[in-house]
Amino acid sequence: GTAVERFASRVEQASGGSLQIKLYPKDTLVPALAVFDATSAGQIDMFHSGPYYWKGKNSAFALFSGTPFGFTAEEINTWMLYGDGYSLWREMYARHNLYPFMGGNTNVQMGGWFRKPIEKLSDLKGLKMRIPGLGGDVMAKLGVNPILLAAGDIYTALERSTIDATEWVGPALDLRMGFYKVAPYYYSGWHEPGSILELTLNKRKWERLGSEHQAIIELASTELNNHMAFDFANENGKALVELKAKGIEVRNFPQDVMEAAKKAFEEVIVEQSALSEDFARVWQNTLSFLNQSKAWSQVGLGHYLNLR
Amino acid sequence: GTAVERFASRVEQASGGSLQIKLYPKDTLVPALAVFDATSAGQIDMFHSGPYYWKGKNSAFALFSGTPFGFTAEEINTWMLYGDGYSLWREMYARHNLYPFMGGNTNVQMGGWFRKPIEKLSDLKGLKMRIPGLGGDVMAKLGVNPILLAAGDIYTALERSTIDATEWVGPALDLRMGFYKVAPYYYSGWHEPGSILELTLNKRKWERLGSEHQAIIELASTELNNHMAFDFANENGKALVELKAKGIEVRNFPQDVMEAAKKAFEEVIVEQSALSEDFARVWQNTLSFLNQSKAWSQVGLGHYLNLR
Repeated sequence: GTAVERFASRVEQASGGSLQIKLYPKDTLVPALAVFDATSAGQIDMFHSGPYYWKGKNSAFALFSGTPFGFTAEEINTWMLYGDGYSLWREMYARHNLYPFMGGNTNVQMGGWFRKPIEKLSDLKGLKMRIPGLGGDVMAKLGVNPILLAAGDIYTALERSTIDATEWVGPALDLRMGFYKVAPYYYSGWHEPGSILELTLNKRKWERLGSEHQAIIELASTELNNHMAFDFANENGKALVELKAKGIEVRNFPQDVMEAAKKAFEEVIVEQSALSEDFARVWQNTLSFLNQSKAWSQVGLGHYLNLR
Repeated sequence: GTAVERFASRVEQASGGSLQIKLYPKDTLVPALAVFDATSAGQIDMFHSGPYYWKGKNSAFALFSGTPFGFTAEEINTWMLYGDGYSLWREMYARHNLYPFMGGNTNVQMGGWFRKPIEKLSDLKGLKMRIPGLGGDVMAKLGVNPILLAAGDIYTALERSTIDATEWVGPALDLRMGFYKVAPYYYSGWHEPGSILELTLNKRKWERLGSEHQAIIELASTELNNHMAFDFANENGKALVELKAKGIEVRNFPQDVMEAAKKAFEEVIVEQSALSEDFARVWQNTLSFLNQSKAWSQVGLGHYLNLR
């Protein structure tokens, strides 16, 4: 999208044209889900995507995007830069000859659109919901059937009751998808509080760049990463006004649903940690940083947002 | 400090050494409070400081740092970049031949250290507190005597009871100042939820830079601005653990104090708006953006931090 175009144009400006990044839209050069391997093999130099797409290669990769009940945008940036996030991510991607940067953040996401209201935990039983990733794993434990659908198929599936619910991103992008027309119950979020996207380079290519070009790529990716979170904050604020004008009322999941979801998430973590040492190692690192972030948030930002 | 050194070194790296920024520590080239005028006159090319220091020149400048009960770090970035923040700031600084960038954010600040606990509004009456800016104006309306002191004098004044309370920044920097030893009641914050610092250039100098160097300065200032907020988030989290180990318990101001402070802040705004058209204009712009941010925060980030 436009964020990546801006990234490429900033790199060109800052390098006086000596470094140019040629963009290929999704699926034109290699299929979207082949960019990881293509960059690893050096067929292409870099890609823009999300680490959770590669969890089939290593389940730990999903954790570099964030987790349910986990880091906010600010916190995942903090963990990457001042905790062990970047060093763990780069160590694990290096095995694939890749060198990743944070390349955007969708900010706090919403919990999704439902055709019928969710008043209690048992209302989730048997619902078909489009929800991928660790959020989908959690929902499965609550009795939901998580369904994967391509973006273009979701609206129709929801309209025809092929699915009962879907999550997407947040007010701005959800509004454009039109879900409010067919599933008017909009729930606040818990499963993707600050998901990051990635700008990932072929590692040998990265190492062969001069320090000037390396610095420019790093600076421009930082701009992309942070600006996208602010852009979402702005667009979500505006879209929420528009959704309210259309009569949409945002609901919160009932407490028994959120408590069950937290418990289910812990079970998912235990299962995934038993299956993968990498997953266990990244999760333990995430958890200790998260506990510190939460303690500070209770005093700082979280407290402030409540009193203001 | 080190954040500005990193900025200068990033500019040098990204420009391959063709743009070098020579740093002069505070008070060595011109006095700290003379940097605005010196840059305006072209004696120096740029400075790193905070817009609230120049409110004597134009009271509206204080608003570009943020306000009590106002923007968080994320929100002020959003207002600057996607609202009218930058355009208003640059319009008003242009009258002084200056071109500003955001150059850091102290993240959510704490409300301060008190020698005695504040249990009710009347406990504030007659207290001498080191608190500058709009927060000090609010406190004055609640019966506090706001005192201005240089950084090096605060600890001694607090120890000797020359003052009864002080605010400074947040756990990380407050810990280093040692206030907990002499004023053990530590209150959560409301008056500087996301104060920005500035990197401000002489405007003619900025305009004479090539587009390559302009892009590099903008990118490096963006990195400085965002990294500082994350750095504070990390250091505050660690310092809070340390303060708790020292037996410090964070307290919240009682509800009557916060309600009175909100009312007092509204009075300050009315008074300042009557005195300055610029202040009134920037405040109105801030307010409408803030209302939208708050509505989204109630559904998004604020709600999430409560449920997690």
